[in-house]
Amino acid sequence: MKNFIFHNPTKIIFGKDILKKVGLEVAQWGSRVMLVYGQNSIKKNGVYDQVVASLNENGIKIVEFFGVKGNPVLSHARAGALLAKQEKVDVILAVGGGSVLDECKAIAAGAALDADIWDLFLGKEPVLDALPLITVLTLPATGSEMNGGMVITNDETNEKFGFGAPVLYPKVSFLDPETTYSLPAKQVGYACSDIMSHLMEGYYTNTANFLPVQEHYIEGVLNGVMESVLVILEDPENYAARASFMWGATLGWNGLGIAGVPGASTPSHALEHPISALYDLPHGAGLSITTPALMRYKKDSIAPQILKFGKNVLDLDTNNVEEVIMALESFYLSIGTPIRLSDAGVKNPDIEAMALESEKLFTMWGIPNYYLNDIRAIYELMV
Amino acid sequence: MKNFIFHNPTKIIFGKDILKKVGLEVAQWGSRVMLVYGQNSIKKNGVYDQVVASLNENGIKIVEFFGVKGNPVLSHARAGALLAKQEKVDVILAVGGGSVLDECKAIAAGAALDADIWDLFLGKEPVLDALPLITVLTLPATGSEMNGGMVITNDETNEKFGFGAPVLYPKVSFLDPETTYSLPAKQVGYACSDIMSHLMEGYYTNTANFLPVQEHYIEGVLNGVMESVLVILEDPENYAARASFMWGATLGWNGLGIAGVPGASTPSHALEHPISALYDLPHGAGLSITTPALMRYKKDSIAPQILKFGKNVLDLDTNNVEEVIMALESFYLSIGTPIRLSDAGVKNPDIEAMALESEKLFTMWGIPNYYLNDIRAIYELMV
Repeated sequence: MKNFIFHNPTKIIFGKDILKKVGLEVAQWGSRVMLVYGQNSIKKNGVYDQVVASLNENGIKIVEFFGVKGNPVLSHARAGALLAKQEKVDVILAVGGGSVLDECKAIAAGAALDADIWDLFLGKEPVLDALPLITVLTLPATGSEMNGGMVITNDETNEKFGFGAPVLYPKVSFLDPETTYSLPAKQVGYACSDIMSHLMEGYYTNTANFLPVQEHYIEGVLNGVMESVLVILEDPENYAARASFMWGATLGWNGLGIAGVPGASTPSHALEHPISALYDLPHGAGLSITTPALMRYKKDSIAPQILKFGKNVLDLDTNNVEEVIMALESFYLSIGTPIRLSDAGVKNPDIEAMALESEKLFTMWGIPNYYLNDIRAIYELMV
Repeated sequence: MKNFIFHNPTKIIFGKDILKKVGLEVAQWGSRVMLVYGQNSIKKNGVYDQVVASLNENGIKIVEFFGVKGNPVLSHARAGALLAKQEKVDVILAVGGGSVLDECKAIAAGAALDADIWDLFLGKEPVLDALPLITVLTLPATGSEMNGGMVITNDETNEKFGFGAPVLYPKVSFLDPETTYSLPAKQVGYACSDIMSHLMEGYYTNTANFLPVQEHYIEGVLNGVMESVLVILEDPENYAARASFMWGATLGWNGLGIAGVPGASTPSHALEHPISALYDLPHGAGLSITTPALMRYKKDSIAPQILKFGKNVLDLDTNNVEEVIMALESFYLSIGTPIRLSDAGVKNPDIEAMALESEKLFTMWGIPNYYLNDIRAIYELMV
């Protein structure tokens, strides 16, 4: 195990009928809030009304900012940070899925910065300050509700970059599983793929000889999420399954799975970002394409981890690595997320463009032992 | 899943060679520290010297307070709180195992209180304030390094009571696995039993129909800890195993295993406290006695959980509940922790005295469906 610091101060308020407490928590941090959301889904499912009622009850002045995209873009985050400054808001309140939460982290940091937000992504400015962020999660997937990281696409350059900092951990995150009842099955499948990827990346890249606590932690949360999603797809209003899925998503990327894991890195994500940036695929749909391709390309060096995954997660009794990868692909297909670019409607992918963009991320994130040739070859496996 | 709030703000600094940072972290909270420890073990293994050197380097004034017992006692905590007040210390620094950490929580709360500490245990006073607590853990077991709870024995009445509060979460906990190399094998076995019990209590008492994330979380950490302890007992200076064991202990009782788990309660602990209070057994030794007895007594109602534990933790393919309990007992014996009171040197246990004391805890902790007759009968199974 390698040395680590684990410090996750986010307060999670989880369960039914909790949104009436949003105003009270916001009021701990100020009296002017910027309420940020995507499109109309939170109005349709009643979340918007519950949140606004609670804010009003607590005398909070609301500044609305909406239109966050599924793959959030820099220009919108810049506009949000500007509005937050102009309106002198005290708190950012994100209501939505990972895209809204991620953009809100950029807004929260941008509102406390005298330079352009993109400088934070490029590492030209350190992320030392941010407005306090409170979140109401309606699409469990990214784990953004309990971590200090985020990802956004620069809509001028098509670069999908991210940053993280302790000041970006939400102060409070509200997780009400009932708000997820209205999610379409497709989105549930993509979300599941995203959650699985967060857990699997550290599992496959880890270079430890003996790491039973973290490995079994990962297998456990993976099993929990995969069992839950199958129930949800059969019975969308099954509270127990929605709740397990939502909590599993949070545990999947809150730092516990990679704490102390030597070698832990995120090559599947480094391969995926160029796909969703160029072809506007859902992030989870991209990850169920990049993950099997990566496993195939690396199968000789990570065979023990693949077989362990097969045994402890997929319940397979096999020494055949390809069999495990195919079983994973079957699982992805069973939850409606694609395993090839062509399945996702990308017929003639620009592999060179993706590979060049991906190589930047491998470099920026310090993921070793992947060269342009490797990256190109992995993309070839996704066609 | 039931509604819950999860908020664990403790910062964990984990790994080799980290104790040189203790002074820097203490300095964030003040310039006068009360350094609390047990006996001489931290002087023998070099931890004391490293901690004192780091405090000196950072110009921290040290007030020493030592002599914490393995089962910490109220009279000593009272003396500590008095000393902390007299010396106007800013921070409590606990260096040791769970007993030192637990007593330090009582001291930290007591130093901020104008009444007697025992009133906090009896619920006569709410725990609203405490001095900041920083810990250096040298015996992984209780999870006290990352939670807000504690337990202590009233040496006038032999009652072993506890309390918990958000203000009692350590601000920072240092976990250096190398400091645990010198622990005797016996203590490692007892520690393992304690960790397992923290994980298993919620698993057996849970009343959910579907709770895959938390259940697999528990199984995962249990598997990790149980694999680690076997390596440690063969090879005490195996860093990877010591590190996994230490981190597993923390994950075992930091709130994650029971977050949202309906029915989660701690009957094995309610049965154990009177044993260690009356016979001064190590807490972990008591738990490996109470746990199988409890499982046997409850085996009809919790059979599905026992069989799931057998399959997912003990790797048993059986429908025989007794077989699982016996396999657990074999595991306990293999790590040197007793499974009967007589094994632990308690030849003529005063069952009535223990049962009466235990009944108080069942009532105080709100654990339903255990009456004096049940408690007595469970103790009979431990003889």
